[in-house]
Amino acid sequence: MRVFNFSPGPAALPEEVLAQAAAEMLDWHGTGTSVMEMSHRGKEFIGIADKAEADLRALMAIPTDYEVLFLQGGAIGENAIVPMNLVRDRPVADYVNTGEWSKKSIKEAKKYVGVNVAASAEDRGFTYVPAQSTWKLSPGAAYVHICSNETIGGVEYPFTPDTGDVPLVADMSSNILSRVIDVSRYGVIYGGAQKNIGPAGLTIVIVRKDLLDRSLPITPSAFNWKEQAENDSMFNTPATYSIYIAGLVFEWLQKQGGVAAIEARNIAKAALLYDCLDASSFYRNNVDPACRSRMNVVFTLPDPALDEAFLKGTKERGMVQLKGHRSVGGMRASIYNAMPEAGVRALVDYMKSFEQQHG
Amino acid sequence: MRVFNFSPGPAALPEEVLAQAAAEMLDWHGTGTSVMEMSHRGKEFIGIADKAEADLRALMAIPTDYEVLFLQGGAIGENAIVPMNLVRDRPVADYVNTGEWSKKSIKEAKKYVGVNVAASAEDRGFTYVPAQSTWKLSPGAAYVHICSNETIGGVEYPFTPDTGDVPLVADMSSNILSRVIDVSRYGVIYGGAQKNIGPAGLTIVIVRKDLLDRSLPITPSAFNWKEQAENDSMFNTPATYSIYIAGLVFEWLQKQGGVAAIEARNIAKAALLYDCLDASSFYRNNVDPACRSRMNVVFTLPDPALDEAFLKGTKERGMVQLKGHRSVGGMRASIYNAMPEAGVRALVDYMKSFEQQHG
Repeated sequence: MRVFNFSPGPAALPEEVLAQAAAEMLDWHGTGTSVMEMSHRGKEFIGIADKAEADLRALMAIPTDYEVLFLQGGAIGENAIVPMNLVRDRPVADYVNTGEWSKKSIKEAKKYVGVNVAASAEDRGFTYVPAQSTWKLSPGAAYVHICSNETIGGVEYPFTPDTGDVPLVADMSSNILSRVIDVSRYGVIYGGAQKNIGPAGLTIVIVRKDLLDRSLPITPSAFNWKEQAENDSMFNTPATYSIYIAGLVFEWLQKQGGVAAIEARNIAKAALLYDCLDASSFYRNNVDPACRSRMNVVFTLPDPALDEAFLKGTKERGMVQLKGHRSVGGMRASIYNAMPEAGVRALVDYMKSFEQQHG
Repeated sequence: MRVFNFSPGPAALPEEVLAQAAAEMLDWHGTGTSVMEMSHRGKEFIGIADKAEADLRALMAIPTDYEVLFLQGGAIGENAIVPMNLVRDRPVADYVNTGEWSKKSIKEAKKYVGVNVAASAEDRGFTYVPAQSTWKLSPGAAYVHICSNETIGGVEYPFTPDTGDVPLVADMSSNILSRVIDVSRYGVIYGGAQKNIGPAGLTIVIVRKDLLDRSLPITPSAFNWKEQAENDSMFNTPATYSIYIAGLVFEWLQKQGGVAAIEARNIAKAALLYDCLDASSFYRNNVDPACRSRMNVVFTLPDPALDEAFLKGTKERGMVQLKGHRSVGGMRASIYNAMPEAGVRALVDYMKSFEQQHG
């Protein structure tokens, strides 16, 4: 029996996608081979990769002056790869610090460029996104870096920053494809696939073509966006099976009505949980209501001693991976695109009964 | 119907492995989740990763003073990552050039260290491995780099070089686990998984622990062997599903009798093809017989105009991916561990009948 999997990532995938992958595992479309066994240079796999890219472009309305790359190394890899690709002859990059993932990006970037922390939400425990009017941006910065959704703190940007001529770079690992965005407002969008796209190990980079001439000479070719763009992401052997699964997820998303439709559902799913939290004096969520994440809903119980009993009850009801990150404690419900509303309703029902029993 | 897949990589996987992966796709061991959906921090996935590492250690008899890392980026990524991790305060690294993959490694390494090409087989069209007595090694080199099997030229090391106190580093992407090796003779063994291990996107690094203090400050944390070793390859989210498949392949290999048993089969499989080539005046293989690859058997037909007819016939008989690399032409039969002897026999039978018809 399938459970409701609230894992922050790698995360739940649509059951239809998994069922199709299982059915095609030994013989994809009559080829007699698994996608896992296909040469990346063969016409079958190139067809799979091309369709995945085309579908992602359609879903996100990615303009033609952007490259879409399927790479490896995850967002933590990109924390180094982003500055390597963007800082040549530019001594400073601006970073906005909204939590744990921003902090990791900042620490890694310092190996390659001077980092100016243009704004930080540390003063209030990373419970909000600093208003853009407070940001102290550097003139001539290589780029401005944000993390559009912080999975650990449960904080999401409610606005798209305006950085003028300086490229905006967003780590969108945990909310890509969950809401409609205007790609043209960004210089670079990147993310690990393991929340809304597919298996861990696949990394998506969407980069405006005019930014492809800024790499440092020390950039490894496998992670050099320009070299990868010139080779259709096949300068090295890509994570072929993960690209195939991502393609199935894109097809599933189209069947759901696309990103606008899934966004409406994500708003409704998150509202179920936040309404429950707001109606309760038992559970607590400290995030500025305007910046609450639709993807990762964090909350605490009045006494951490109750956590174990809470989690035991979720497990008995077929709900898993609700424990909060070890750095902040409490609970976290990650409700990405593939989490059905039924899963969120089951959790809310349980939360209410647990409150009645222990409140 | 499954075909005999002679792809050089990503390559054929054991049918039993694919069948098990398909059966477990929606619900791994009663957890109600796919391995693809599991948090890498959860006890289920940590169990999968620990067992995969333990099985690989047992299969290769990896000594305890070596780390085993499951990373990303493939061998082409490692072409940069190897020098980044090994050259601090050491101005020169030695490389032996035995073909296309060696050349790629050399080109990339030059970004990070002075490269001394200690020996090259270019003088005879990369058809042999230069004897170690001819190598011009640098005193105090950071390491000596070899590619133990060149998939394009079909050339494999018949010996393990002795590099004394200088660490021997081997790109073993295409023959790892195909033959018994003495890991203690190497400082670093690395490879992409997509030939003998599992899906593309997973990279194996086996590194002697005393070499973990030599990284350049510019090394990205996700690719810093020491940081990854300290975090059990989970400094970033690893390619979880690929590690799971690799683990199934390791279990399959144990059931085959381990590496010594598969080596005996690989010798027999390769002999079938080379005996056919040697008995023929129609087909030609130019590789020094002592250095013929057991994994990639390359050959040409007397007239390239016959190639298309030859390939058409293989396809009609359920054999695919036999076309040689575009840089050398001709044919290439990649016969990794998962290729059954029946596949090689089918190819040899066809080759003989094609020769009778066109010879």
